[in-house]
Amino acid sequence: MSTAGPIGPLSLNTVTVKERWGLRDCIEGCARHGIPGISPWRDVLQAMGVEQAARQIRDAGLNVTGLCRGGMFPAADAAGRAANIEDNRRAIAEAHTIGAACLVMVCGGLPPGSKDLPGAREMVREGLHAIMPEARAAGVTIALEPLHPMTCADRSVLSTLGQSLDLCDELGEGTGIALDVYHVWWDPDLARQMRRAKGRIAGFHTCDWLVPTNDTVFDRGLPGDGVIDIPAIRAMAQESGWTGGAEVEILSRRWWSRDPDEVLPLLKERHETVC
Amino acid sequence: MSTAGPIGPLSLNTVTVKERWGLRDCIEGCARHGIPGISPWRDVLQAMGVEQAARQIRDAGLNVTGLCRGGMFPAADAAGRAANIEDNRRAIAEAHTIGAACLVMVCGGLPPGSKDLPGAREMVREGLHAIMPEARAAGVTIALEPLHPMTCADRSVLSTLGQSLDLCDELGEGTGIALDVYHVWWDPDLARQMRRAKGRIAGFHTCDWLVPTNDTVFDRGLPGDGVIDIPAIRAMAQESGWTGGAEVEILSRRWWSRDPDEVLPLLKERHETVC
Repeated sequence: MSTAGPIGPLSLNTVTVKERWGLRDCIEGCARHGIPGISPWRDVLQAMGVEQAARQIRDAGLNVTGLCRGGMFPAADAAGRAANIEDNRRAIAEAHTIGAACLVMVCGGLPPGSKDLPGAREMVREGLHAIMPEARAAGVTIALEPLHPMTCADRSVLSTLGQSLDLCDELGEGTGIALDVYHVWWDPDLARQMRRAKGRIAGFHTCDWLVPTNDTVFDRGLPGDGVIDIPAIRAMAQESGWTGGAEVEILSRRWWSRDPDEVLPLLKERHETVC
Repeated sequence: MSTAGPIGPLSLNTVTVKERWGLRDCIEGCARHGIPGISPWRDVLQAMGVEQAARQIRDAGLNVTGLCRGGMFPAADAAGRAANIEDNRRAIAEAHTIGAACLVMVCGGLPPGSKDLPGAREMVREGLHAIMPEARAAGVTIALEPLHPMTCADRSVLSTLGQSLDLCDELGEGTGIALDVYHVWWDPDLARQMRRAKGRIAGFHTCDWLVPTNDTVFDRGLPGDGVIDIPAIRAMAQESGWTGGAEVEILSRRWWSRDPDEVLPLLKERHETVC
């Protein structure tokens, strides 16, 4: 196991404080707490207005490490899939407007009532092919995010780094990987696939796996409160050419209930001490 | 995707009714409901007495499709690991006494407080090497069970079929795979690894993945109530030489609360209609 280099700058993924703060609060909060990066979700971005948000983020001097999220391609019928593709085209335009380093893709699970996993994967593949021309034209990197296998049914049939890299290989230029330690830490094939990801990591996300984990989606921990060896994964990312920082993204009912002005200093501390 | 052949006989994994029935109840219940197989957990086996249980299972004419479970090798110190290995030796003796087709291995997660996943995997590897001589001498197949990655921290660092087959390759004769559809259905590499498993499947377990899933351990569904394409996975198993039936193993707070004499007919029906 290699040693990690110094960690790059912190970025706040807005879902971390979603119950308390809109995007304007997040931008001001990052400035107030000295957090140099931000990664908005589309709901808060649209609520604020994309142009307005772009201006305020730029004025605050924040680095936009990503836009969350595109994807969610599978649907029960062709009209639904076409609508999802259109929505992804809007997401690409939004990512371009705010100068996001990438558009993070949570690719979607099984259509309601379906047990056809190969079919859902094919819908993801087709959706991605459909949007790549717009993404390339806009200069927006499509960052495929492998999601933990426990989300396969309802959030993402893209479950491993290896599977995501296979798709990057197929899709070609303009694609990359959004690597969240929460989703990949367990993977017995991780070291090999991280070498394969060389030059293709487009985002690095942190949080932690709690023991016990009481919810398959909303029980993530602050970095350091769980069992993930974050520096070990960061070292692999850095050896594969990642020179950026770490975006902290914590979906947690527990932390959502807290005052973000108390949470952000904790995120900064953990970023410096355990990531 | 190939078509599955006829399904083999049903076996009841005793954990499915653990809140209501001891092993004697399970044996009598299987006979009463016409379920030809049983797979006890060690707690109920020991509570009844191993010799006594072996006799009663034999008298009832039940096929013992497995003993659950060996494994749980990692521990914080050498004494703990040695104790775990000794416990596995007792499990091998018990599996031999009841004539179990295999000893199912749930290999164990991280030692308490540890973030050293490679280290925990090494403890599993060492533990398995340590017990193979006794297993071979007793003629007990060691069935490695890849567990869903959401159990990596606290139940099993063996997370994929591919990783389990790598270990089988290394351990050699006397090893096999316990394949539970719940643990492997999401795996993008499943078809390839199932081909690799040819001749090495030692057990086939059914249940279902519910949407939503409200607990990482105790919220499994009856076959047919979730999203797993069980016949597709069974077809792959049969193409890889599996000629046995299906052991139904449902860890579920919901189903544990029900009268087993109501649950067993449902299991039979689902076994025949959706597995």
